[in-house]
Amino acid sequence: MNKANRQWRLATYPDGMPTEDNWIMSKSSIPEPGENEVVAEAIYLDVAPYMRGRISPQKNYTSGVGLGDLMVGGAIGQVVNSNVVDYPVGQLIVTGNFGWQEYAVLKPNEMRKVDTEIAPLPCWFDFMGTNGITAYFGLIEVGSMKVGDTVVISAAAGSVGQIAGQIAKLSGCRVIAITSSEEKLAWCQKIGYDDGINYKTEPNLVDAITRVCPNGVDLYFDNTAGPIHDAVMQNLATFARIVVCGTVSLADRFDEPDIGERFLRRILVARARVQGFIVDDYQNRHQEAWKCLADWYQRGLLNCEYDIVQDIHNMPSAFLRLLGSQNLGKQLVQVSTPSV
Amino acid sequence: MNKANRQWRLATYPDGMPTEDNWIMSKSSIPEPGENEVVAEAIYLDVAPYMRGRISPQKNYTSGVGLGDLMVGGAIGQVVNSNVVDYPVGQLIVTGNFGWQEYAVLKPNEMRKVDTEIAPLPCWFDFMGTNGITAYFGLIEVGSMKVGDTVVISAAAGSVGQIAGQIAKLSGCRVIAITSSEEKLAWCQKIGYDDGINYKTEPNLVDAITRVCPNGVDLYFDNTAGPIHDAVMQNLATFARIVVCGTVSLADRFDEPDIGERFLRRILVARARVQGFIVDDYQNRHQEAWKCLADWYQRGLLNCEYDIVQDIHNMPSAFLRLLGSQNLGKQLVQVSTPSV
Repeated sequence: MNKANRQWRLATYPDGMPTEDNWIMSKSSIPEPGENEVVAEAIYLDVAPYMRGRISPQKNYTSGVGLGDLMVGGAIGQVVNSNVVDYPVGQLIVTGNFGWQEYAVLKPNEMRKVDTEIAPLPCWFDFMGTNGITAYFGLIEVGSMKVGDTVVISAAAGSVGQIAGQIAKLSGCRVIAITSSEEKLAWCQKIGYDDGINYKTEPNLVDAITRVCPNGVDLYFDNTAGPIHDAVMQNLATFARIVVCGTVSLADRFDEPDIGERFLRRILVARARVQGFIVDDYQNRHQEAWKCLADWYQRGLLNCEYDIVQDIHNMPSAFLRLLGSQNLGKQLVQVSTPSV
Repeated sequence: MNKANRQWRLATYPDGMPTEDNWIMSKSSIPEPGENEVVAEAIYLDVAPYMRGRISPQKNYTSGVGLGDLMVGGAIGQVVNSNVVDYPVGQLIVTGNFGWQEYAVLKPNEMRKVDTEIAPLPCWFDFMGTNGITAYFGLIEVGSMKVGDTVVISAAAGSVGQIAGQIAKLSGCRVIAITSSEEKLAWCQKIGYDDGINYKTEPNLVDAITRVCPNGVDLYFDNTAGPIHDAVMQNLATFARIVVCGTVSLADRFDEPDIGERFLRRILVARARVQGFIVDDYQNRHQEAWKCLADWYQRGLLNCEYDIVQDIHNMPSAFLRLLGSQNLGKQLVQVSTPSV
């Protein structure tokens, strides 16, 4: 193997919305596995909103990326060199701990096996990955979803949103998409959302939500915070649940306080519940969720859209594409093709 | 009975903090009970923060008081005229549906019997009344209180706060009072709070909470909203629970939006839960709570302080006293003495 390992490193912390020059590409030699380790080559690199939180010097739920460090991220890859019997060369794997690079050293507890007989490769970033269990536990455990709920989902066509919308629909809820383009709205209706709002063209978001949710919002799966959150909070049904899954709309002012109307009286009057979660909180129940998600997929109840950009050179631009809501479906960057 | 029934009626909606001339006293004749009704005479009239919410034209969780209408409120009283076999003349009762007046007509489903062998009269407004079950279900059900939690209570010496503090302490928590005077702090420490903050004299409330809660706040029983809420939100432990029980600090700007820092990222990072509740939500479990509260009281584990103003003429001023945090303990107005 004479190839180099191309890597994206963090050059500067963004001031507001990130730009491509916040990262710089470097090359290193392809690593060798140590004892009980493999080296895997990336096939798809993940591009996800949580990455914005890692490139801030502000404290977060995990530590951030230091300047000069490899940018964090997950990958679907293939083992190319192995000191682990259970993960031989050729084994397809998925990991959240790969980084924006072509080759990574992994220990067995950092990866899961990918079985393309259960679902095709990209699905393992999607409903068979973190997004699936995020949507699953967010709705079912944090959101206490029940049949008949009016469920509103922001970033409804996004990687978590599109799965959440479909789970809510097949669970007997009325499901409303809030998204940023007519193209995304059309996709949302195709995969089963009952109604939707394009927040970019809607003159009054509070009224628009009142119109499509005349009995109020029972469950809000909040991927965005910001103005969409504010508009939903003015439309709460009694005993509403607000699942705080992401705050992507705050991404370009990450280090500033978020000033605006607070809703404590509305929370009190509606007896509402606003709850944050991250999917690691349900770590001991991930298998239960994936089993259920795989079953839904195999019965044709789950669709997924992918927005696949080619070439590791395009990682920063693909990430900005995501932050700018330009992607349709789960954003990925394809780096190589699997060898069979 | 030649006496008149003195009544306080709402004259005007307050603009900001109420003033005494928002009410006007009128007199009517003492009513007669209809079929399956009693007439009760007030002994103590309740004075409570929720009353502020009822004198606003803004929508609330129950309908407001109309101009010219009798002001709403509860009372401990005694039956003086009865068409109900089970509630004979002389029976002591407590009700949330009396109004600011001397005599009221009540149906059996609007009142509970008071048993002074279980606890003295004023206690039936207190731990044997709505305040007790509010503290009980707020901590145990909404707040998921558990042994070892650091529990912060605002309005800590208030009618709900003083009970919540004692329940949290006897449940094995470390309990922190936030209150408005040294006199109240002293009372809080006497009834078992481990530590406390006088927010009126504390130069930096965020730092003060950090100092007394070095591992963060696990459970915040929020009776106030406003600046105390904001300071606690900057000190959340992972999986913190914020019980939104009252928003009395917003009382003087009730009809304006509450603008300030929002905490969705903190809620997400801490995986916190912010939940509103009102005690009626647990209506079918009130007896269970009162049984437990009476048991704690009889074992000497619950103390209560009362701030008793004499004379029905002083109802508006007693209410303003409460809104201005001048009371120490549960605010009541004594209107008559029971006949034995």
